[in-house]
Amino acid sequence: MTSRFCVLFFMLSSGIHGEVLSPETLQQAAELRDQAQASDLGYEIVESLTTEVGPRMAGTDGDARAVAWGKAKFEELGFDRVALEPVTFPVWERRAESGSVVSPFPQPLVLTALGGSISTPASGLQAPIARFENMEALKAIPDDSLDGAIAYVAFRMERAQDGSGYGPAVVARRDGASVAAAKGASAILIRSIGTDNDRMAHTGLMRYAEDTPRIPAAALANPDADLLDNMLKRADEVVVRLDLDVGETGEYTSHNVVGDITGTERPDEIVIIGCHLDSWDLGTGAIDDGAGCGITMAAATIIARSGLPLSRTLRVVLFSNEEQGLIGARAYREAHANALKRHIIGAESDFGAGRIYKFSSRVKPEALGIVDQITQVLAPLGIVRGNNDAFGGPDLVPMRASGMAVATLHQDGSDYFDYHHTANDTLDKIDPEALAQNVAAYAVFAFLAANAPGDFGFGLGAEKP
Amino acid sequence: MTSRFCVLFFMLSSGIHGEVLSPETLQQAAELRDQAQASDLGYEIVESLTTEVGPRMAGTDGDARAVAWGKAKFEELGFDRVALEPVTFPVWERRAESGSVVSPFPQPLVLTALGGSISTPASGLQAPIARFENMEALKAIPDDSLDGAIAYVAFRMERAQDGSGYGPAVVARRDGASVAAAKGASAILIRSIGTDNDRMAHTGLMRYAEDTPRIPAAALANPDADLLDNMLKRADEVVVRLDLDVGETGEYTSHNVVGDITGTERPDEIVIIGCHLDSWDLGTGAIDDGAGCGITMAAATIIARSGLPLSRTLRVVLFSNEEQGLIGARAYREAHANALKRHIIGAESDFGAGRIYKFSSRVKPEALGIVDQITQVLAPLGIVRGNNDAFGGPDLVPMRASGMAVATLHQDGSDYFDYHHTANDTLDKIDPEALAQNVAAYAVFAFLAANAPGDFGFGLGAEKP
Repeated sequence: MTSRFCVLFFMLSSGIHGEVLSPETLQQAAELRDQAQASDLGYEIVESLTTEVGPRMAGTDGDARAVAWGKAKFEELGFDRVALEPVTFPVWERRAESGSVVSPFPQPLVLTALGGSISTPASGLQAPIARFENMEALKAIPDDSLDGAIAYVAFRMERAQDGSGYGPAVVARRDGASVAAAKGASAILIRSIGTDNDRMAHTGLMRYAEDTPRIPAAALANPDADLLDNMLKRADEVVVRLDLDVGETGEYTSHNVVGDITGTERPDEIVIIGCHLDSWDLGTGAIDDGAGCGITMAAATIIARSGLPLSRTLRVVLFSNEEQGLIGARAYREAHANALKRHIIGAESDFGAGRIYKFSSRVKPEALGIVDQITQVLAPLGIVRGNNDAFGGPDLVPMRASGMAVATLHQDGSDYFDYHHTANDTLDKIDPEALAQNVAAYAVFAFLAANAPGDFGFGLGAEKP
Repeated sequence: MTSRFCVLFFMLSSGIHGEVLSPETLQQAAELRDQAQASDLGYEIVESLTTEVGPRMAGTDGDARAVAWGKAKFEELGFDRVALEPVTFPVWERRAESGSVVSPFPQPLVLTALGGSISTPASGLQAPIARFENMEALKAIPDDSLDGAIAYVAFRMERAQDGSGYGPAVVARRDGASVAAAKGASAILIRSIGTDNDRMAHTGLMRYAEDTPRIPAAALANPDADLLDNMLKRADEVVVRLDLDVGETGEYTSHNVVGDITGTERPDEIVIIGCHLDSWDLGTGAIDDGAGCGITMAAATIIARSGLPLSRTLRVVLFSNEEQGLIGARAYREAHANALKRHIIGAESDFGAGRIYKFSSRVKPEALGIVDQITQVLAPLGIVRGNNDAFGGPDLVPMRASGMAVATLHQDGSDYFDYHHTANDTLDKIDPEALAQNVAAYAVFAFLAANAPGDFGFGLGAEKP
């Protein structure tokens, strides 16, 4: 490795002085990029995970099979250190769920319980619907005014390339039950947090507040929310029945699965990429987040197989139980508390399988020149430079909060929320060419970050550095 | 009415001599066309049916509610004669259904029983999969060679504007069970007859042959067929479990719902348009065939409300139980056996809600001039002339076989088989503007056919007239 010793020069693009990557290293990254784009490996990995394991909700048999799969796959791919790190959490089960309109227009409704919800009574729950355009409208009514009605939040998520419609919509899923309970509701129904018109409901995590009664929570498929809206336009009272048999059943210990390609010069310094290994139960977890596992496992493998020099250790983490609260991510930070500062930079892939269009960072100003160099190697993939306030991915939130530098390789998520957390999250939704472009981008990022002469900073504040 | 008395002239476009529609009548048809295109009535009708009734599989409570809805809607729309005509058939029920891969990669499968199937044993049915690329491959193996395996037919339907991929694919659904039973299968699974990649199975009618054992029959959603294919690529034996609780439960009498706009000059002569009122149970029957009901009920209503002169009677029939074998259509022919020759021409709308692009006929040569005149009024809707070998629609098959002239207003069915017979057959799949174009085309056809000076022929042979 000579790049770390190369001379400093003025970085026109960023206006920052600093050490830079050598032309030789940049050329090697370009070669990796082109190899990765021509490789099917990322797709093969996600095909293997969805076919051989499929649904792998935290705490299920599928979870255990996924951990075994991850360990075996890392070993098969030639990672030189593979470790299972325990992650313990409460188990939530979905046993049965159904719903219907009882009157005035009896017909079934397609719905799914939200993750974390309690059951309805064994005899079912039947009550009139009280419709709210959005969470603000629900919050605006007086406490205890719903008199046992089922609160229904009709807000529809907007489609956007960057998934920015999710935030304004997901508050109903996350907080709706407790807000509705405070208003006197017996249950909450939300319009699915999704951009599709498929008759499939979107599940996802909800949380109960400490100070309100717990009530059952479910999401209607978008066509069923339309149906309920149309009924409510012509009927003063629409009575719905819910039968949810779900809930917490105990504790389970799963594992983060960690695979390393050990660096030759600075093996104790870690560049961390990864995905989450768990999925919701309805689909086979192809885009959420089998794709992220395929992308990052393939990127690291292609680097390792190239034989090109890797200064730092490249670590791929398949995080446990992201879906129910970043539980694996928190366990990782705790388990590696003494090594946090040796995590030089990280990026998680967890937004489906769409093409990457932008590269953002969250690094110290002195490292922006390196980021620009990485961007130049990414450019032929159609990737432009983003800002220096990157998110890094959900499972890196705890590490980022502790000060780790992060990057985001922004994927086109225009159709991500058509399938997210539904039965429709299956392999066919992945375009192999787009997936290979992702692998290429992660290979470039990981290789150059692992070979960058300086670090990317640590302890970056909450504000934009 | 003066059009029937107008002078004969040489029809350049067809080269046929004959009576023609008057310029005044053609102008009236053009006005109806433009009114219909600007009207929401068709959409309002299908919205009403899907919202207030929803699923209406033959013999269910929904069937009875649909008949009541049809009668009330005809009356509300101002049809001057509304009749219920009894239709009796065996009832097939779907009570519960599930399936899963047992080994080597345990995970659930999304499937649905085919209409008419028997149940699996109450304890379930578990057997290895024997995969066949298509029905020809299944037919080619020796009798009694499957030794209790579940036969799986993997053939995938092709997408086409005219739905021409359906025929080659649907043979597996219709005949697969008995062919597989003769080969010694314990059950049959088919890839859904559908062009989508949604994780929803397509149901539809199957039939048992007289001379083979009856075995359970179900369709896998396309992503689940992909999954099974991928498992079979890497495992010698894939064992699947099926639990189908379905079957015939007795007899039921439903009704064809008939609405007339009585003609003023030739009230005993009937132009018949319509749809089928029943649906499968999984969706709300929006495109199959709520759309057809909305289109034809709206077209007739717009004609009636216009106050324009109508020589013949315009009849709209909402046929009972099309899905399980044209049972309402056969009952209609039987009930009207003495009036068959007074059914001058007919066209059923039963191919979704896509725009009409072509107008075909099946009429005597002398009437081709009238057909050309109708086509000229349809042309501004983007509709071109088809051939003179029209199908007429499934519920007109018995009448056509008896000699009635028919027309087909060909809809763009490119996405019809994405939703056909699935839970995804819901209102949101209908584009209101495309539906209004359909209403306009049916209004033009029905008005001009009802006012055409001569008839369209009767007793046309099986061959192209």
